[in-house]
Amino acid sequence: MSEKKTAAGLEAEIKEDGSFNRQVNRFTAPFGEGAGELPVEAGRYRLLWSAVCPWAHRSVIVRSVLGLEDALSLGTASPMRPDLPHADWEFSLDEKGVDPVLGVRYMSEIYKKTDPGYSGRPTVPVIVDVKEQKVVNNDYFKLTNYLETTWKPLHKDHAPDLYPEHLRAEIDAFNHTIFEDVNNGVYKCGFARSQEAYEEAYDALFARLDELEERLCKQRFLFGDFITDSDVRLYATLIRFDAAYYSAFKTNRNRIVDFKNLWGYIRDLYQTPGFGDTTDFQAIKVHYHLSKHIASDDQKSKTILPKGPDLSALHSEHNRGALSKRIEKFLIHREG
Amino acid sequence: MSEKKTAAGLEAEIKEDGSFNRQVNRFTAPFGEGAGELPVEAGRYRLLWSAVCPWAHRSVIVRSVLGLEDALSLGTASPMRPDLPHADWEFSLDEKGVDPVLGVRYMSEIYKKTDPGYSGRPTVPVIVDVKEQKVVNNDYFKLTNYLETTWKPLHKDHAPDLYPEHLRAEIDAFNHTIFEDVNNGVYKCGFARSQEAYEEAYDALFARLDELEERLCKQRFLFGDFITDSDVRLYATLIRFDAAYYSAFKTNRNRIVDFKNLWGYIRDLYQTPGFGDTTDFQAIKVHYHLSKHIASDDQKSKTILPKGPDLSALHSEHNRGALSKRIEKFLIHREG
Repeated sequence: MSEKKTAAGLEAEIKEDGSFNRQVNRFTAPFGEGAGELPVEAGRYRLLWSAVCPWAHRSVIVRSVLGLEDALSLGTASPMRPDLPHADWEFSLDEKGVDPVLGVRYMSEIYKKTDPGYSGRPTVPVIVDVKEQKVVNNDYFKLTNYLETTWKPLHKDHAPDLYPEHLRAEIDAFNHTIFEDVNNGVYKCGFARSQEAYEEAYDALFARLDELEERLCKQRFLFGDFITDSDVRLYATLIRFDAAYYSAFKTNRNRIVDFKNLWGYIRDLYQTPGFGDTTDFQAIKVHYHLSKHIASDDQKSKTILPKGPDLSALHSEHNRGALSKRIEKFLIHREG
Repeated sequence: MSEKKTAAGLEAEIKEDGSFNRQVNRFTAPFGEGAGELPVEAGRYRLLWSAVCPWAHRSVIVRSVLGLEDALSLGTASPMRPDLPHADWEFSLDEKGVDPVLGVRYMSEIYKKTDPGYSGRPTVPVIVDVKEQKVVNNDYFKLTNYLETTWKPLHKDHAPDLYPEHLRAEIDAFNHTIFEDVNNGVYKCGFARSQEAYEEAYDALFARLDELEERLCKQRFLFGDFITDSDVRLYATLIRFDAAYYSAFKTNRNRIVDFKNLWGYIRDLYQTPGFGDTTDFQAIKVHYHLSKHIASDDQKSKTILPKGPDLSALHSEHNRGALSKRIEKFLIHREG
C-alpha cells in the first residue's frame, strides 16, 4: 500500500471549482435481523466518537436520550487531531493513550484492521463489533435512525420515539435538506477553496437558517411538540455555530444568538438531558481553533485558544414551553 | 544596510513572555511655531493612510470633521500588505501603482528617503513634507491633537472643538487608558504568542469595555454632549471590532452589537459626517482576514474573504440624541 494511498486527507474531497464534497461512507451495513444485517445485541458493539464532531454527537445524544448507555459502550477520541500527515483521531484522553476496550491508539488502526485497503478518512461516529474487532458501520447519516428503530428492544422504559413512523417520510426529506445546507453546509463554507464556492454555501446556509427561524416561531420543535431525530441533527450543528463555525468556518452573517427563535430553541434543547450534558465546548473550541487540519497553519498564533464567546446565556430561561400543547407528555418522554 | 535590518517585522515587537509591545515612533517633531517645530501651512503636507488602520483612521476622521481636506492632502495605501519579507504598505490603488504626489510605490521608500537607517515598521498615519519629500511626523498618538490645536488656523468655519482646553488633562488621561486596554489592547490579543499574554489582554479589554458601557448609559459621548478626540479614538477601534477583531484577533467574549450603549454610541458616530463616510468595511475585512502578516498562513484558505457580519443595522435609529442636552449646538458643530 503506497503512502499516497494511506495519506488520504481533505484535499481528496475538494473539487476543481474549489467546493468541498464529503466522502461517501464505506461501512453501511444496516442493523436488523435480515441476511447481511447486523444483529442488535447488548454489549456487542462500541460507539467511537470525539466530542467535537457534530456527526458523532448526534449518535451520542440519541444514545443518551434513548437510554442505550449500558447496551452500547462509548470510546472517546481527543479533540486534537494527531500530528500525522493524514487526518486521524487519537485516543490520547485514555490511560496509556489507547482505547481501553479496542486497544488502539489511532482511529485509523481499527479501520485498517477491518479493511487493509481502506483509503478514506477514518471518521467518527463509527460502530465497532467488539468481538470481531472490526468496524461494522460508519454511516453518520443513518446511524441515529438505526438506534431509534432496530435498537428499540434495548431502549430504556418510556424512551421517547424520536422517529415516529407516521413522520418518517417528512423527517427524512427534512434531514436531507438540512444536511445539504446546514449540517454539511457549514463545512462547505469552511473547506471551500474558492470565493465562489464559499459564497454559494454561505448564502444557502443563511437562507435555510432564515427559513428555520420562521418555522420555529410558532412551534416548539421542528415537528411540533416533541423532539425528533431532526432536532438532534439541527442541534448538533447549531450548538457549535457561535463557538466555532462563526469564526473558524467564516459563517459570520449572524450568530445563532442573533436569531430570536433559533436561540430560544437551542437553549431549550441544551437544557434537555442528553443534549447540553453531552456538549463539550472546550473540546469543540480546541478542535476548531487549534487543530492543524482546520486552524491556521501559522505556527505563531495557532497555540492561542479563543477565550470567548460568552455562552452563559445558554442556561437562561427560554419560555419555549409556551409553544407546546402537550408539555407533560414531553416531560415524561424526556425523563423516561 | 543588512537585509536583517530592513526586514523589521512584528517579531521584533514580541517580548519573551509572548506579549506584543508596539514599537516607539521615530518621527515625533511637533507642529508649531517654535524652534524645531513644524510650521503649519496649507498645501505643504500630505497625510498617508490606509483605510484599514485604526491609528490612521483617527487622523482622517479629524481631518474631515475639522474641514482640513483642502489644507492637507491624502494618500491612500492598499488594504493588502505587499508580498515582501517585511511589513510594508503599497500604493497599488493608485494609477501606475505609485502615490501620485510622492511617486513612491511602497511606504518604506518615503521612510528610507528620510532616514536611510530607518529599521522600524513603516507605519501609517504619517505626515510627509511634500516639498522636502520627507517624513516629518508619524506620531499616531499625538497627531489628532496637532490637527485639533496648532492646525486651528486652517479649520473650516464653525469647526467643532474636539480638544477643549478645560478638558485636555482628562482627555489625555482617558486616551492613555483606552490606548492600553482597547486601541492597542485588541492588538495585544491578536498578536500575543502565549496563552497567558492573550488572556491578560482579553480580560483587560473586556473589563474596560464593560466600564465604557456603563459610562455611556447616561451621556451621549465620552465627555458629555459633544464629540471629543477621545470619541474619535474609541470609534476607530470599535467600528472594526465585529467585522475584524472579533474573529481575527480572538476578541470574542462579546461583539459590540451585544453592548446596548456601546452599540448605540457607535451607530450615532457612524451616522455622523466624517465617521461612517471614512469607514471602509471592505478594506478592513480584506486586511484583517486576508493579509499575510495577520491572517492565516494556510495557503488553502487565506484567499477566502468572510462575507459577514451583517452590519446593516449601523444605519438604524440610535435614539442617543435623547441623552444630549444641547442637541442644536452639537448639530451646528457637525455641519460646520
